[in-house]
Amino acid sequence: MQALVIYAHPDPSSFNAAMRDVTTSTLGEMGYSVQVSDLYAMGFKPTIDRDDFATTFDARHFNVTREQRHALEHRGLRDDIQRELDALLAADLVVFHFPLWWFSVPAILKGWFDRVLVSGAVYGRQYVFERGKLAGKRAMLAVTTGGPEAAFGPTAINGDMLDILMPIHRGILGFCGMTVLPPFVGYFVPYVGDGGREKLLAAYASHLRAVEQLAPLPMPRLADHAETLAPLLRTKAE
Amino acid sequence: MQALVIYAHPDPSSFNAAMRDVTTSTLGEMGYSVQVSDLYAMGFKPTIDRDDFATTFDARHFNVTREQRHALEHRGLRDDIQRELDALLAADLVVFHFPLWWFSVPAILKGWFDRVLVSGAVYGRQYVFERGKLAGKRAMLAVTTGGPEAAFGPTAINGDMLDILMPIHRGILGFCGMTVLPPFVGYFVPYVGDGGREKLLAAYASHLRAVEQLAPLPMPRLADHAETLAPLLRTKAE
Repeated sequence: MQALVIYAHPDPSSFNAAMRDVTTSTLGEMGYSVQVSDLYAMGFKPTIDRDDFATTFDARHFNVTREQRHALEHRGLRDDIQRELDALLAADLVVFHFPLWWFSVPAILKGWFDRVLVSGAVYGRQYVFERGKLAGKRAMLAVTTGGPEAAFGPTAINGDMLDILMPIHRGILGFCGMTVLPPFVGYFVPYVGDGGREKLLAAYASHLRAVEQLAPLPMPRLADHAETLAPLLRTKAE
Repeated sequence: MQALVIYAHPDPSSFNAAMRDVTTSTLGEMGYSVQVSDLYAMGFKPTIDRDDFATTFDARHFNVTREQRHALEHRGLRDDIQRELDALLAADLVVFHFPLWWFSVPAILKGWFDRVLVSGAVYGRQYVFERGKLAGKRAMLAVTTGGPEAAFGPTAINGDMLDILMPIHRGILGFCGMTVLPPFVGYFVPYVGDGGREKLLAAYASHLRAVEQLAPLPMPRLADHAETLAPLLRTKAE
């Protein structure tokens, strides 16, 4: 079994780094072969632009989706994208480590989604959710917050964590067909002390050891929306 | 009245660019003085790292929030951040133009949020929502999608657009105290033809002309959560 770890934190001494080390050691003990993409250490380029493509589909209008599909067919994806895409396609399990910045992922990780999740390779207009091209793979978010747990929840000031993560769980991972496991959230990490952080790491290791038993988050099914969407999916871009 | 337009699309001939031009001309006619930050044209750096700061609070551990607060006090923010922050603080209205990529903003715009929304300048631990430091300013998202409108909604495959945008509306703009106006969403723009796009631009101009009358989105209030959060807000980071 192959695991891919996408790690997005600028500080090598961060609590996120300690969680990532729990991931590599725990999954290693469970028999996984683990590969880590340390986006900051790699100097990963977050911004999608013309330089991402050795090929050109349309020199006048830069439509990302169409350039991606064209590049994919003609081996025109830039090396750093192709390497990450190959690692993703080879993985059975993908774990994303990041601090929650502005209720979402850091820009460098958003750039990984924007650039590596290439149209035609991981999804297509009629290949989303249960028909997504990453079907069969599992994905899990491992998140930290500076805010306290009491600030999150259905009636709390920041709203529920699953609502905050919905655009990632459903809009990215589930959309591509992945089986999305419940996230692990380490709350309030700058404030809980060394003892609190040790407890969080232990709780995280337990969560991770159950990765093959965890009940996935519910996702919509394309089949349930076929009637509404079918005529639209036949439309051609200009 | 000052308006700041944050524009995040890689193609100068895109429909997003046409919408941005509607913003500058319409707000100009309404008497606003309009400034545009064209993030791609500026080569805006999306990744937050040590280079963002001329000052150093802690050379061993890189905690973004604490480095931001320290840099803010000692004029240590990198020029490109300081310029955007000054423009934001001077604005009465901020309009964000972007294509919805992976149910969120492009990485370059996420980087603008990560880097420009400096702790201490736009929010503080006890200065969020109605006490946020951007209180009194209005913000609006102007979004385009490749997906059809029928794919969005409470029972649709992608979920409701307001739920998708919630982490931005509530987690970023509302969190800093801004009055968040209903977004304008141009759906399915690569597929609707020139006539369809003209109609969208006209509808967008109408939306924008009502910008001073639009009823804002509801936001939580810190005052309603004071009892739960007060003890936690007194906690000190280590």
